[in-house]
Formats: sequence, C-alpha cells, structure tokens
Amino acid sequence: MKRKAPSGNPPTGLEVFPNPHPHRDYEIEHVATEFTSVCPKTGQPDFGTLTFIYTPNQVCVELKSLKLYLQSYRNRGIFYEDVTNVIFDELLKLLKPRRLTVISEWTPRGGLRSTIRCSYP
Amino acid sequence: MKRKAPSGNPPTGLEVFPNPHPHRDYEIEHVATEFTSVCPKTGQPDFGTLTFIYTPNQVCVELKSLKLYLQSYRNRGIFYEDVTNVIFDELLKLLKPRRLTVISEWTPRGGLRSTIRCSYP
Amino acid sequence: MKRKAPSGNPPTGLEVFPNPHPHRDYEIEHVATEFTSVCPKTGQPDFGTLTFIYTPNQVCVELKSLKLYLQSYRNRGIFYEDVTNVIFDELLKLLKPRRLTVISEWTPRGGLRSTIRCSYP
Amino acid sequence: MKRKAPSGNPPTGLEVFPNPHPHRDYEIEHVATEFTSVCPKTGQPDFGTLTFIYTPNQVCVELKSLKLYLQSYRNRGIFYEDVTNVIFDELLKLLKPRRLTVISEWTPRGGLRSTIRCSYP
Amino acid sequence: MKRKAPSGNPPTGLEVFPNPHPHRDYEIEHVATEFTSVCPKTGQPDFGTLTFIYTPNQVCVELKSLKLYLQSYRNRGIFYEDVTNVIFDELLKLLKPRRLTVISEWTPRGGLRSTIRCSYP
Amino acid sequence: MKRKAPSGNPPTGLEVFPNPHPHRDYEIEHVATEFTSVCPKTGQPDFGTLTFIYTPNQVCVELKSLKLYLQSYRNRGIFYEDVTNVIFDELLKLLKPRRLTVISEWTPRGGLRSTIRCSYP
Amino acid sequence: MKRKAPSGNPPTGLEVFPNPHPHRDYEIEHVATEFTSVCPKTGQPDFGTLTFIYTPNQVCVELKSLKLYLQSYRNRGIFYEDVTNVIFDELLKLLKPRRLTVISEWTPRGGLRSTIRCSYP
Amino acid sequence: MKRKAPSGNPPTGLEVFPNPHPHRDYEIEHVATEFTSVCPKTGQPDFGTLTFIYTPNQVCVELKSLKLYLQSYRNRGIFYEDVTNVIFDELLKLLKPRRLTVISEWTPRGGLRSTIRCSYP
Amino acid sequence: MKRKAPSGNPPTGLEVFPNPHPHRDYEIEHVATEFTSVCPKTGQPDFGTLTFIYTPNQVCVELKSLKLYLQSYRNRGIFYEDVTNVIFDELLKLLKPRRLTVISEWTPRGGLRSTIRCSYP
Amino acid sequence: MKRKAPSGNPPTGLEVFPNPHPHRDYEIEHVATEFTSVCPKTGQPDFGTLTFIYTPNQVCVELKSLKLYLQSYRNRGIFYEDVTNVIFDELLKLLKPRRLTVISEWTPRGGLRSTIRCSYP
Repeated sequence: MKRKAPSGNPPTGLEVFPNPHPHRDYEIEHVATEFTSVCPKTGQPDFGTLTFIYTPNQVCVELKSLKLYLQSYRNRGIFYEDVTNVIFDELLKLLKPRRLTVISEWTPRGGLRSTIRCSYP
Repeated sequence: MKRKAPSGNPPTGLEVFPNPHPHRDYEIEHVATEFTSVCPKTGQPDFGTLTFIYTPNQVCVELKSLKLYLQSYRNRGIFYEDVTNVIFDELLKLLKPRRLTVISEWTPRGGLRSTIRCSYP
Repeated sequence: MKRKAPSGNPPTGLEVFPNPHPHRDYEIEHVATEFTSVCPKTGQPDFGTLTFIYTPNQVCVELKSLKLYLQSYRNRGIFYEDVTNVIFDELLKLLKPRRLTVISEWTPRGGLRSTIRCSYP
Repeated sequence: MKRKAPSGNPPTGLEVFPNPHPHRDYEIEHVATEFTSVCPKTGQPDFGTLTFIYTPNQVCVELKSLKLYLQSYRNRGIFYEDVTNVIFDELLKLLKPRRLTVISEWTPRGGLRSTIRCSYP
Repeated sequence: MKRKAPSGNPPTGLEVFPNPHPHRDYEIEHVATEFTSVCPKTGQPDFGTLTFIYTPNQVCVELKSLKLYLQSYRNRGIFYEDVTNVIFDELLKLLKPRRLTVISEWTPRGGLRSTIRCSYP
Repeated sequence: MKRKAPSGNPPTGLEVFPNPHPHRDYEIEHVATEFTSVCPKTGQPDFGTLTFIYTPNQVCVELKSLKLYLQSYRNRGIFYEDVTNVIFDELLKLLKPRRLTVISEWTPRGGLRSTIRCSYP
Repeated sequence: MKRKAPSGNPPTGLEVFPNPHPHRDYEIEHVATEFTSVCPKTGQPDFGTLTFIYTPNQVCVELKSLKLYLQSYRNRGIFYEDVTNVIFDELLKLLKPRRLTVISEWTPRGGLRSTIRCSYP
Repeated sequence: MKRKAPSGNPPTGLEVFPNPHPHRDYEIEHVATEFTSVCPKTGQPDFGTLTFIYTPNQVCVELKSLKLYLQSYRNRGIFYEDVTNVIFDELLKLLKPRRLTVISEWTPRGGLRSTIRCSYP
Repeated sequence: MKRKAPSGNPPTGLEVFPNPHPHRDYEIEHVATEFTSVCPKTGQPDFGTLTFIYTPNQVCVELKSLKLYLQSYRNRGIFYEDVTNVIFDELLKLLKPRRLTVISEWTPRGGLRSTIRCSYP
Repeated sequence: MKRKAPSGNPPTGLEVFPNPHPHRDYEIEHVATEFTSVCPKTGQPDFGTLTFIYTPNQVCVELKSLKLYLQSYRNRGIFYEDVTNVIFDELLKLLKPRRLTVISEWTPRGGLRSTIRCSYP
C-alpha cells in the first residue's frame, strides 16, 4: 500500500500571543473533543479527541486559531499516525515549548479503536 | 495577533490576617467554582474553577476578600493563561507563602476545554 | 483586617484514658462529620468535616468528650485556619501522640470551598 | 475518667489447625462484617467491621471458632481501641504468625466514625 | 480440633500442552469464578473465585482439564487454606513455571469472608 | 494431549505504510474488541479483546489490513496462548518495532476466564 | 419528660417580596442543607436537610431572611417532628401559598435516621 | 423589603427563524449551563443552569441570539423567581409556542440551593 | 434573521430492502454517534448524536446507505431544528413506517446544549 | 439494492424438553453475548448480544442446542433485522410460548449502533 507524504504543508493559520509570564515554568492543557478528518484509504470520516499539554516558552497558542486550525483537517485525507505527528510538529515549530505532549484517541472502526501518543523532549 | 499587557495592576482589595500558627508547616486549599471573566478576543464570557493550595508563612488570605477579588474579574477581558498567572503573582506577592499552586479549569468553548497549572517554588 | 488571638484557651473538657497497649505503634482515626462554628467576620455559621489520625503514646482521647469538645465550638467565632490549628494544638498537648494529622473540609461559601491540613511531626 | 483493664482474659475458645503448608510464606485475610460490642461509658451497642490479614506460621485460626469468639464480645463493655488491641493480642499469642494486621472500622456515633489499625511486626 | 492431611494425592487429571513459545517470558492468567468445595468441619458447601497467574516454562496447563480438575473438589471436605495450597502445589509440580501466583477469595460465611494468597518464587 | 504446531504460516495479508515520523519515539495503541477464533480441542468459538501497543520504527501497520488479518482467525482452531504468541511474532517480524506489547483477554468458558500478555523487548 | 409548647412564636424575621408573576401557577424549591437545632431531651445538636417546595400566591419568601430564620433554630431545643411543623406553619401563614411541601431529613443518631414530610393542601 | 418591578423591559435582541416544519408537533430543548446574574439584595453574583423545553409554532428561537440574550443578565440585579418568569414571558411573547417549560437551578448560597419551574399551558 | 428553505432536496442515496417480516409489528433502533453538519449562521461545525426508532412497514433502511446519507451533511449549513426535521421527513417518505421517532442531541456551544425530538404518528 | 429471502430454512437442530410446570405462568430469560454473523452486503462479520425472554407453554428450549443453533449463524450472511426475525420465528414455531420477546443489540459499525426488538403477542 502506498501513501504520499504531504509535501510542503500550507500555512496553518495558527496564531500565538506572547507568553504573559515567560520566566515561569507552568503547564497548559487543551483538550479538543470534536476533531474529525478523513481516512485516506477508505474516504470515510474519522473522529477523535486530541489532547495537548505543554509548558510555554516565549509564546502561547491562541485558542480560536487552534480551533480553526483543527477544523482545517475536516476534509483532509490523513492517517491517525500522520495527523498526530503533523500537528505535533506544527506546535513544536510554532511554540518552541519547553515540553509538549500530543495524544489522539479515535472512535472505533470495525471493532478497532486506536490511540497515538507523542512527547517532547 | 496582539495582546496588551495589563500594566500597573489596580489594588486588588485582597486582605490578609496573621497566620495564627506561623511556626507550623500546614496546608490550606480553597476551590472557587464560580469564576468568570471575559475573553479579550471575542468579548464572550469565560467560566472556570480556580484551585489554590498554599502553605502560609506570616499571613493567610481572608476568604471574603478573596471572593470579592475573584469577582473583580467578572467584566475584565483577559486570557486563560494570563489570568491564572496574574492571580498567582498577586497571591505570591501578598502571602509570600512557603509553597503555592494555582490551577484553573475552564468550561468548553467550541469543543475545546483548557486547564492551566502554576506552582511555586 | 484585624483578628484577636484567643488568649488563654478555656479548659477543653477533653478526657483521656490510658492507652491499653502503650508499647505498640498503632493508628486511630476519628472522622467528625457534623462540626459547626461561626465566622468571626460575618457572624454566619460554618459547617465542616474534621478528620483526626493519630498514633497514641500513653493516652487515647475519649470519644464522648471529643464530641462535646467539638460541640463547644458551635457558637464560637473562629476562622477555618485557626480552629484547625487550635484543635490540633489541644490534641498535641493533651495526647503527646507519636504522630497526628488533623484535616478540616468546609462546605462552600459564595462559591468557595476550603480544606486545611496539619501534621505532626 | 477511669477504665479498668480486663485482668486475666477468660479462655477465648479460639481453635487452630496445623498450617497445611508451614514452609510457605502466604497470606490469609478474614473480614468480619457483623462485629458488635458495648460502649463501656454509655452502655450503648457499637457496630463495626474487623479485618484480619496474616501470614501463618505453624497454625491457622479455625473460622467457626473465630466467629464464636467474635460473638463473645456482644455484651461486653469495651472501647474501640481496647477491643482492637485485645483481639490483636489474642491472635498474636495464639498464632505466633509471621505477620499480622487487624483493622476495626466503626459505624458513626453522634456524627463521629472511627477506625483503628494494628500491625505486626 | 484435628484435621487429617490428605496423604498421597490422587492423580489430578490435569493436562499440559507444549508452551508454543518457550523462549519468551510472557504471562498467562486464568480466573475460575465457580469453584466450590465442602467445609470439613460443618459439611456446608463453600464457594470461591480462584485466580492463577503464571509465566510458563516448557508447558502450559490445558484449560478443559483445569476446569475438570477444579470440579473434582466439589464434594471434597477441605479448608480454604489447604485447598489453596494444594492446588498451588499441583500447578507448581506440573508446570514448573518461572513464576506462579494463586489467590482464592471466598463468599461470606456467618459474616466472615476470607482470601488466601500464595506466590512463587 | 497433543497439539500440532502450525508449521509454515500462510501469508498474513498484513500491510504496512512508511512511518511518517521515523526519527521520533512515539506510541501507537490499537484495541480490537471483536476477535474470535475456534478452540482446537472442543471446536467451540472463542471470543476475546486484543490490545496492541508499539513504538514504530520504519513502518506502521495499516489498520484495515490488521482488521482483515484478525478476521482470518475466525474459523481457525488455535489455543489462547498460541494465537497471542503467533500474532505477536507476526507483528514483531513485520514491524521490527522498538517496543511491542500484545494482550489477549478472553470471555469466560465453563467459569474460567483467561488473559495472556507478551512484551518486547 | 416534659416539653413546653412554644406559645406565641417570636417574630420570625422572615421577609417576603411581591410575587413578580402572581397570575401564573409556577413552582419554587429551596433546599437548606445546613440546618441544625438541639434535641430537647438530650441537649445534643441535630443536623438535617430541609426542602421547601411551594407555588406562590401574592408573595415569595426572600432567601436571605429564610437563611437567617433557619439559623435562629441553631440553639433552640425542639423535636424533629415539631420543628418541621412549626416551620411549615410559619411559611403557610406568611406566604398563603397555593401549595406547600416541607420535608426534613436528619443525620443518623444511634443508627436511626429520620425523615418528616408535611404538605398543603 | 421592597423590590421595584422592572417596568418596560428593553428590547431583548432575541431573534427567531421560521419553524422549518410548522405543521409538526415536535419538541426542542436548550440547556444553558453558564447563566449568571446579580442578586438585587446583596449585589453578589448568582450562577445557575436554565433549561428551556418548547414545542414551536410558527417560529424557533435562534441559538446565538439566545446566548447573547442570556448574557445580557450578567450585570443585572434580579431575583431567581423574577428572572425565571421574565425570560419565560419573553419566550412566550416571542415564540407563541404550543408548549413551553423553563426551569432554573441555582448554585448554593449560604447552604441554600433553589430551583424555579414555569410551564405553559 | 433570514433563513432560506432548502427547496427541492437532492436525491438522498438512501436505500431500502424489503422488510423480511412485513406482517409483524417490531421495532428497529439505530444510533448515529458521529453526526456532523455546519451552522448556517456562524459557519462553524456542529456535532451530535442522532437516534432513529421505527416500526417498519414494507421496507427497512439499509445501514450503509444511512451512514453515507448522514455523512452527506458533513459540509452542509443547516440548523439543528431543520436537519432533524429534514431527516425525519426523508425517512417518513422513504419508509412509510408504522411509527417513527428521531432525536438529535448536540454537543455544547457557548454553554448551550440542545436536543430536538420528532415523532410519528 | 436487492436481497434474496432465504427460502426454506434448513433444520435448526433446536431441541426442546417438556416444560416441568406447564400449568404455571413463569418467565425464562436467556442472554447470548457472543452472537456473530456476517453482513450480506459487505461480507464483514457482525457481533451482537441476543436476549430471549419467554413464558413457556408445553416445552422449553434446551440450552446446548440453542448455543449450537446460534453458532450456526457464524458464517451466514444475513441482515440484523432478518436474523432477529428468523430466530424469533423459529422459537415461536418451536415453543409455541405464551409470550416471547427477542432483542438483538449490535456493536457499532461506522459510528452506527443498532437494536432490533420483536415481541409476541
């Protein structure tokens, strides 16, 4: 089976704002319970919950832009493993956080349910 | 996206009383389940639960003044991350506690729910 | 805000009985679910649960006298932090226990609920 | 307040049988949910759950005799702390176990509920 | 009270099959929820749950023969402590496992409920 | 009792796709709640849940092919211990993962319920 | 034992405000979870939850005055049955409601817990 | 105690859209979990959950305008009973529904929690 | 606010199969937990659970075509009330069932969560 | 879409035994949690739980034959609605019960889960 790597990701529209307290080591957690994308193999929609836990450095991700960014996957064909890593990479590049964890948990398909977990450092 | 830092915080009205047992290392926890402020980006109200856990030094925070202080955010535009740190800073400056943790947990917005956690030392 | 320290506590009426097994290191836990006192600032009644965990030395606290002692706070104006420490001190002085923990958990007031925890040694 | 020590305990009627596997280090747990005795101060009945956890040596306690032994406290005036230790002592003397824990948990009296825990070694 | 040791256990009928993957260190758990034997003192039936956790060596126990073996205790008078150890011994001798744990949990009798735990090594 | 080893497994039909992020150490978990095979001794169907947790190396297992592969056991006679190890082996050979755990949990048969756990490394 | 009927109740301090919608038949429920009074026989404090459900006529009871009125029982010796009926009578006289139910549920005393229910019409 | 009736309510900003199926008798339920207003007596904020259940006639209430309408009470001093009836009246006038129920449930104040229920017809 | 009625619905792609037992009065329930459409006012995605309960007449709805039909709303702007009724109408027209109920339950938006219920006859 | 009716069912192998108490109106319930058949459209396996509740007349269904009968669907392509009715019919014809209910509940497929319910009379 073949799968093309999405080469040259489009601009994400993700916005940041200055971390109001950049000298402090503190933790931010966002849980997105309504993520949906499309299976690149079957064309069927996938549904999942994405959890982001990070310790900000100079910037924080702005929530409305995060919501819109996640919505941009609504009609995009992408595997569970890939979308989790791609979003992980975008946030890593954008936020340069001290620590970052992304977890995706997916509703069952044909009796199979999946979870992907990425962490930095 | 731009966000102005609130320069020169107004007096908080927070009151303290002498720690009745300043030589003892003990723990105080207050949970405020009715916190509300305003999103500075959308103008929409935010709702959350704030948890304060601290070990007092010379003074304790008086509860009624804490309630009124938290109510002073009712119509103030401020981000989740900022309000958590600002309140954390006020308590740190006011109480000079041996230890302090502040956690804010927010009701969902557009399928996203958030939690912020700050700790000292 | 000012708060007078209650100088010279009255006799507590707390009774002890000889620890039937003073050479053994064992643990006693009492949970008082119907504690009530009065807020010294607002004059309003406070309600809480007090938990006592201790390892006795030469004496144990007698339960009926503990119940009556706790009832003696019914109409007394005293802060959460203070009453927890005062009762902790009384038990420490009376029992000279090997170990002692006192925890007070209070019903919500104006959307705020509190917990105080003291431990020896 | 005075409390006479029960000097010279009567025979307990507790029976043992040879540990079928004395060379093995294994664990036995018995939970007695229907224990009742009498408060020596108020004359009121007390109700509790007793938990016994031990590693046998040469003998095990026979269950029916344990049940009858526990029933022998039905009309006996004895404090929570004392009865827990007395039964602990009887089992220690009788079984000479490698390890033994006895826990008694009592139903509330006047808003107070108690737990006593003894362990050997 | 006397109890005769069952000398010279009859053949158990337990069967084994070659561990299909003898070079791997992996774990097998069987939980038998319908075990029943007879109390040798009162003649009353006992009911319990037996849990077996082991890491196989050269052989695994075959499940149907385990079921039949456990059923062979149905009309046999044997104490909780004994039956747990006897079955533990049989499995130890038969399987020569790398690790083995047997736990028996018994339904309450006269307000007393019991648990026995054996482990190797 | 005899059991023939399945010599020379047929092609599994399992497909892989290139790990989209082969340089990252991250975790993938798939839970298959509808696994069914046949008991080689009784001819009766078995039902279980299989859990796969792995850290990919160069490739990931494609989910639809995993589903079809698991369905290929539907009418195959194979023991709990064997099927768990065989699938574990297939995935080990196919994925050459950094880490892999396979757990199978089976519905009760004759009052016995079983769990098998394999881990690499 | 004697118990004097409280002849000529003192002014209750209960306040009303005009029912803002006197032509509508609607339901108001208040639940007071921190009621406490004193047992006239033992002098011991009682604790309970009082539930008020009524359909207003021309007036509604003001909540702060209801809270203070309930607090006025804090040191008053009165039986469960009596206090429930006295409060029921006060509200009936004050509100002249279309319908009224008062329920009192009390914490256990000596293993006994009680509930009293009054309804009009 | 006096309470001024809010004479001449300001325009509510509530919007409607044509009931897409005016000939059908069907049910719509909206639950607003973040309602907040101000107590006209103490000036303290109140928090509650409002539930609306109605059967539409010619029009339905538009959700965003309902959210904004409910937010317009954020800094308005109004009693529990009044706000429930005022909103009930607005919806009755606006929607002319076949059936309508409004329920408001409020967080505790001083140990008292309240619920108001209005129904049409 | 204006809302255009979707005139002339496109073919739904819904398929039926002959009710295998048309003379029997029996009940079929399908619950779709992954429904998503778009809010016509804000352009934001909506998420909900749709429940269908019907008693078939001559035909039943085929499940895969129902899944695809529900997916066809993924990028369509339509209100909660409308989509519930439109789907209700399609099924009514297609199945001519003896009885039909459609319930839609939506995830919260801005602190408001909604449920719509339609029934025939 | 077309679907051929399975004309002329093969013998079911279902066995009965005489109802031991034919003059009494009593209820029998069997729950089969491991039913599996095949979707006639996709060829994919389906999994469900079947519940049978009946009041016997002259005969009862024998359980082992019921188990084998249900297993005979393991590789048969048949819709949810059909299999539920076919089994219902077989039991109706075989048992001529006073009352019979058959309920089938199916695991989710593509975010859709289904339940079918048949009842006699």
